[in-house]
Amino acid sequence: GFPGSPGLKGESGENSFPYHSAFSVGLRGKISPTSDAPIRFTKTFYNEQHHYDDISGKFRCSIPGMYYFTYHLTIKGKDTKVALFRSGQTVVFTLDQFHCGNLDQASGGVALNLFAGDEVWLQLYDATFDESIFADSNNDSTFSGFLLTPRITVSDPFDNRKR
Amino acid sequence: GFPGSPGLKGESGENSFPYHSAFSVGLRGKISPTSDAPIRFTKTFYNEQHHYDDISGKFRCSIPGMYYFTYHLTIKGKDTKVALFRSGQTVVFTLDQFHCGNLDQASGGVALNLFAGDEVWLQLYDATFDESIFADSNNDSTFSGFLLTPRITVSDPFDNRKR
Amino acid sequence: GFPGSPGLKGESGENSFPYHSAFSVGLRGKISPTSDAPIRFTKTFYNEQHHYDDISGKFRCSIPGMYYFTYHLTIKGKDTKVALFRSGQTVVFTLDQFHCGNLDQASGGVALNLFAGDEVWLQLYDATFDESIFADSNNDSTFSGFLLTPRITVSDPFDNRKR
Ligand SMILES: [Ca+2]
Ligand SMILES: [Ca+2]
Ligand SMILES: [Ca+2]
Repeated sequence: GFPGSPGLKGESGENSFPYHSAFSVGLRGKISPTSDAPIRFTKTFYNEQHHYDDISGKFRCSIPGMYYFTYHLTIKGKDTKVALFRSGQTVVFTLDQFHCGNLDQASGGVALNLFAGDEVWLQLYDATFDESIFADSNNDSTFSGFLLTPRITVSDPFDNRKR
Repeated sequence: GFPGSPGLKGESGENSFPYHSAFSVGLRGKISPTSDAPIRFTKTFYNEQHHYDDISGKFRCSIPGMYYFTYHLTIKGKDTKVALFRSGQTVVFTLDQFHCGNLDQASGGVALNLFAGDEVWLQLYDATFDESIFADSNNDSTFSGFLLTPRITVSDPFDNRKR
Repeated sequence: GFPGSPGLKGESGENSFPYHSAFSVGLRGKISPTSDAPIRFTKTFYNEQHHYDDISGKFRCSIPGMYYFTYHLTIKGKDTKVALFRSGQTVVFTLDQFHCGNLDQASGGVALNLFAGDEVWLQLYDATFDESIFADSNNDSTFSGFLLTPRITVSDPFDNRKR
């Protein structure tokens, strides 16, 4: 007899499209950060999944995985030291000194493996540094983060027979 | 007679690899950026998809989705203020002051949701800042961007039965 | 005779999950980088795949593809110039001058297309800059990198018939 008809097309591979988590936010001039709370970035460049909460100033992890966080801060008026916190613990510190007439930019970045529920935020180190970070309508200080690789339990992608 | 041989194997499913868009470019010393046009970064570190055009100085979005853009600039000779533009509108500003003998680095970054045809570039804010960004053969000022998540209409990946 | 039975179902599409490569490391205060060797970042924020080797100070590429590297350095005590090397060649340079009492932050970043076995590291440009990068228990200097798009040999995803 004739050969049979072709088999069905395979299923699509898992794709990473459903796993989106990113934010990019900026300081507004009317808020002067102090060391007793997370810095609240209330200007939104991107926050489609609403994983950054501009009331608390915290990013909250919904999709476990490896994220990259980065910040770019305008240092004006005094020295600054800022820490990136993960769920109550400092992770990485950025210090920049200021001299009158020489406003500076300071930036930092770190990749972290997060679990669902982990929170990440920026906060000034102590009261010495209060009001050291600057922004106005055309000078920004920003905080961004994005999911690079979700940590999803998938069957071994090299063994399609198990599926 | 006997049945025919089995049909051909079905086609493979889709994969997420085809959606690539990234660039990383640097300033060349012989070009001194001015405020009347996009900064042209003509030194190429990566531009495989040619989505950054070093004639116009603009990145042009081909694959809709969420991108991260970042820049690292050498500030020499005078104060600088630079804006990242998206299709004719300023999005984010970076200011850095300069004092003689204290060359600085300024950087910025932002995540943006782009549509096909959107253009993104860096430009000095006004003529006050002309020629404030520096590069030569072993001092760089760079601009990079990359697609993080394409915005592709796919059937619900959690419901393969619909396919 | 009757037609044969249908062919086997096609294989699932590739997915991007198995291709993970990222690191994020920091300088420890007790190590003062000098220009005769890669800077060794021995504080680990993320290095799950162990592609960064904190003995040699080098990232070694296992998965070919396009990576983004970025660094955020604390400049204290003297001017600094640092280069990002790829397998023995300088790729991108970052210079920052220091003035007493005005500690600065310098950062850089670049996207690179790597082949398996390529090594990437940071190194001071020459002995003039020895000991110019600073870190202690609550002041960081960091180096991070992550795979954005693996370069895997797949048949043209837009033409499944060729498979
Ligand atoms: Ca400055
Ligand atoms: Ca400086
Ligand atoms: Ca400073």
